[in-house]
Amino acid sequence: MEPTAVLLIDCPDRPGLVARVASLLYEHGANILHADQHQDHELGLFFMRVEWAVKAGTAGTSEQGSKGPAEASSGTAIFALAPFERDFARLAEELQMHWTLVSTARRPRVALFCSQYLHCMADLLERWHTGELKCDIPLVVSNHRAVEKLAAFYGVPFEHTPVDPADRAAAEALQLELLSAHGIDLVVLARYMQILSPAFVARYPAAIINVHHSFLPAFVGARPYHAAHARGVKLIGATSHYVTDVLDDGPIIEQDVARISHRDQVEDLVARGRDLERIVLSRAVRWHLDRRILSYGNKTVVFD
Amino acid sequence: MEPTAVLLIDCPDRPGLVARVASLLYEHGANILHADQHQDHELGLFFMRVEWAVKAGTAGTSEQGSKGPAEASSGTAIFALAPFERDFARLAEELQMHWTLVSTARRPRVALFCSQYLHCMADLLERWHTGELKCDIPLVVSNHRAVEKLAAFYGVPFEHTPVDPADRAAAEALQLELLSAHGIDLVVLARYMQILSPAFVARYPAAIINVHHSFLPAFVGARPYHAAHARGVKLIGATSHYVTDVLDDGPIIEQDVARISHRDQVEDLVARGRDLERIVLSRAVRWHLDRRILSYGNKTVVFD
Amino acid sequence: MEPTAVLLIDCPDRPGLVARVASLLYEHGANILHADQHQDHELGLFFMRVEWAVKAGTAGTSEQGSKGPAEASSGTAIFALAPFERDFARLAEELQMHWTLVSTARRPRVALFCSQYLHCMADLLERWHTGELKCDIPLVVSNHRAVEKLAAFYGVPFEHTPVDPADRAAAEALQLELLSAHGIDLVVLARYMQILSPAFVARYPAAIINVHHSFLPAFVGARPYHAAHARGVKLIGATSHYVTDVLDDGPIIEQDVARISHRDQVEDLVARGRDLERIVLSRAVRWHLDRRILSYGNKTVVFD
Amino acid sequence: MEPTAVLLIDCPDRPGLVARVASLLYEHGANILHADQHQDHELGLFFMRVEWAVKAGTAGTSEQGSKGPAEASSGTAIFALAPFERDFARLAEELQMHWTLVSTARRPRVALFCSQYLHCMADLLERWHTGELKCDIPLVVSNHRAVEKLAAFYGVPFEHTPVDPADRAAAEALQLELLSAHGIDLVVLARYMQILSPAFVARYPAAIINVHHSFLPAFVGARPYHAAHARGVKLIGATSHYVTDVLDDGPIIEQDVARISHRDQVEDLVARGRDLERIVLSRAVRWHLDRRILSYGNKTVVFD
Repeated sequence: MEPTAVLLIDCPDRPGLVARVASLLYEHGANILHADQHQDHELGLFFMRVEWAVKAGTAGTSEQGSKGPAEASSGTAIFALAPFERDFARLAEELQMHWTLVSTARRPRVALFCSQYLHCMADLLERWHTGELKCDIPLVVSNHRAVEKLAAFYGVPFEHTPVDPADRAAAEALQLELLSAHGIDLVVLARYMQILSPAFVARYPAAIINVHHSFLPAFVGARPYHAAHARGVKLIGATSHYVTDVLDDGPIIEQDVARISHRDQVEDLVARGRDLERIVLSRAVRWHLDRRILSYGNKTVVFD
Repeated sequence: MEPTAVLLIDCPDRPGLVARVASLLYEHGANILHADQHQDHELGLFFMRVEWAVKAGTAGTSEQGSKGPAEASSGTAIFALAPFERDFARLAEELQMHWTLVSTARRPRVALFCSQYLHCMADLLERWHTGELKCDIPLVVSNHRAVEKLAAFYGVPFEHTPVDPADRAAAEALQLELLSAHGIDLVVLARYMQILSPAFVARYPAAIINVHHSFLPAFVGARPYHAAHARGVKLIGATSHYVTDVLDDGPIIEQDVARISHRDQVEDLVARGRDLERIVLSRAVRWHLDRRILSYGNKTVVFD
Repeated sequence: MEPTAVLLIDCPDRPGLVARVASLLYEHGANILHADQHQDHELGLFFMRVEWAVKAGTAGTSEQGSKGPAEASSGTAIFALAPFERDFARLAEELQMHWTLVSTARRPRVALFCSQYLHCMADLLERWHTGELKCDIPLVVSNHRAVEKLAAFYGVPFEHTPVDPADRAAAEALQLELLSAHGIDLVVLARYMQILSPAFVARYPAAIINVHHSFLPAFVGARPYHAAHARGVKLIGATSHYVTDVLDDGPIIEQDVARISHRDQVEDLVARGRDLERIVLSRAVRWHLDRRILSYGNKTVVFD
Repeated sequence: MEPTAVLLIDCPDRPGLVARVASLLYEHGANILHADQHQDHELGLFFMRVEWAVKAGTAGTSEQGSKGPAEASSGTAIFALAPFERDFARLAEELQMHWTLVSTARRPRVALFCSQYLHCMADLLERWHTGELKCDIPLVVSNHRAVEKLAAFYGVPFEHTPVDPADRAAAEALQLELLSAHGIDLVVLARYMQILSPAFVARYPAAIINVHHSFLPAFVGARPYHAAHARGVKLIGATSHYVTDVLDDGPIIEQDVARISHRDQVEDLVARGRDLERIVLSRAVRWHLDRRILSYGNKTVVFD
């Protein structure tokens, strides 16, 4: 697959936004592959995602480039990202836009965290290995050693960061150092059973994805399958969300459910739930990597 | 369809229960059509549902009958319910069973309650009209007059029981009188937006079915679609349950969900939710009428 | 709700389409409420749906109007549809677009067809009655009289068009006359068990919606629930689609499924299926009325 | 978990079957954990599954044992399987039963087959590794070498059986030899892209499970995702089934579907489908291992 550029925008809604953005892209010769927008009429907000083709070698966002579409030696137009970015920045300032512009030629760098349960970790690593998750994974982190062999099998360096209940800050300090050293863009909590401090969370806003093993907001907190069993629900669920300061309260990215019956004991719920957890977490990670998610307030826009 | 008998049992679990019940049925010549059992190993409880064929004319539970299978004039065995019931009562006492034995020849009598929203009411009446719900419906009750014409179309007497906020007991007194006068077995709250008093609920234990327009236990109480929208969930749900003293807390009978997206406003959730409400409420009523549900503690066993 | 205008476009894909359309709308002062587009990269096709606010009184597409946004007496901009349509027609011709432009102020006129089974008919009429389906329904047609009372209850004229197997053309001739006399835009086959002739279908291209009681393309033709039962599938389905000359082969609009088990007999499948049929047919009709569907070749684009 | 015994029965339906089986179990002192039965009224067949506790050391079916419940040293009753089996065999002969009696103390031996796509293989091995699949896996077989490292990671011997199109019998001969040498009870085709000969299939009746990447009977044969895309369906599916002589036509064990839209290209269907394939195949294998499946004619009973 050839590289593409993705532009994500959110800003106050006003007439003409689509026309202005689409026209600028057209002037720069963009061959738009996907475009999607959304308006939150209540809050007066506008969201947009545009994806268009660039050619290998033009993928960076910092190189020099002449304005307008260039001609590749193969006769295919090359899209010059840098001059577009320059022009777009002016437009964005005028229209009070928050925006990000990335090229898929630069693969996001992801760190995976887990504790003892490895089903989500094994699933993510296998999806990454087969190319479904378009990212680099330079780091697996755990407060246990259970994941060590699995990480080794997939050739990912493992870092053991045991958590001393008397000094939780020490483990986090080590983890933050590792994330920084590896240039991590996204942290995925693949059933990592420790609560991150607000200071940690603040370092990665909308860049830490967690999976909670219930249909939020039902059964917040510990042992949700036990709570679901006690309440006698007929469906169990799982939820992936961005982590914020408040436990299990961040913007929801994806949820799914499975039907259970009176025959299912807690251990059956746990087993059924593993499939849900794998599905909702892997979708959230893929969508984040594909730059399909915009989070605002406590919600997400997920462009399909 | 020829009438059948349904026996529902719950009791302390112990070895030999299935053998004892099945043997007694066999001795009485029952031709078993369906049998299902369940054990709650945690609580040490046993649940069983057996359904077998009886012939028209033997369906009552009070008439005289000689012990053992009789021969109908057509040559088909007639099952004599009365002597079986007598023998079974002795077995049940020995084994500390709670039990009910009903013949489908006697149709349960159902009262439907609603307020202004009529989608569940229209759905239930249409299902009843086409024979999907095997019951009599001698009574539609509402604190509004919106349902009057619909009830008339289906030929069901309508009773208007306006609720005076200053004297809620008056409306309930009238309703209880109506239920009693019509020999009602099951009350269905088809989006009835009034909270019933504990005294009312106590009169119909495990015989009042409500639909709540959320995936319980999430979004208990008023305006759940608004709450779901505010939380940014990706699935909405609906729940049917038996009514108990605690609001939205009774034994859950059925739940279902539908996928929503950031594009859906509260009014879209309300519209999507109507389909869920119809489905989960009509299933609960059908299962109750088919004697498929045993409720215990705060849970239900729903035999399929 | 205030009226809106909806523009649906399909055309050969080329750069700048979004920019050109969005800019024209902007020049005319459109306040865009929703916009969505899709490209079929294989076939090189572009699809777009835009919806924007107009004000009461400007909703028609034939009245005179000055070019550019006008000011309503309330101070709110009125969108003049006629001049926009004039300008857009020029653009559309240049870009080889197929397009339709409608105002929601003009309600589509729908005819409902059925045979003996009334569950879809009852469901559609109830949804229409409560405002979920934004259309006029001046006509219910059936080859049986079973629906007569139901139509009367909802105040819709009923026409009986019995089908003589020896002269099927006669019934169709009468039906086409009725459709024409009532200015029908959309025909909904709500379990109408007769096959329409190619000549009939040709009169309403992409304007006849049928529901088939299977998960197409599985179980084409008669008695799909029997076929599903015989095959031992674990899920049953229903499909709504536009009618074409080939039986059960038109562009699919919506499908849904329900889980069944070995316990379910054919009659259980039929009962479960009724819920699926209601859901997929009512969704298709609503989406069609909301102008969310573009059909091309044997597929549909359904904008959400 | 302590070992249990599972008895699976199918036979002509007649009155008293449950009573006879349950009474025999009771006489032998069985502590029944789960019991389920089903009748196919059309074909006059009866199916039953009973599971009860045995104690370690009594799990085999060939050892000596005194009739009746014995007392373990811990004071817990030990169930003597051998005498029960002897008595039950007599009953079964009288009632023309097909039956199998197994103890979970003996783990089934499973061989996994695959070609190049490894997602199902990775999923099954991980589920086996974490104890979700209660079996031994002494053998991974493939006509490619892609799976070799994965098998090694999980410590499972890999056998390469390349298929020469000019001599397919040679590969099958080698495979049958391997299956025999390893005492294999169940063959799982985890996206094995070769068609097995009738002779091979005949060696493992109802003991070869395949996953087909469509919602059967739709899209039989090769490239079902391409066919689904071409037909424009709105849901895609996957099916696990026992292999018979007719391609993609064996008794269906499990099916599941996922919603797609016009935005999804064939490669998106393939990616979505991988999740479905993992789910339906792993469920089928688990249910088979748990002895929950009875196949008859072209159908399955799956006891839950």
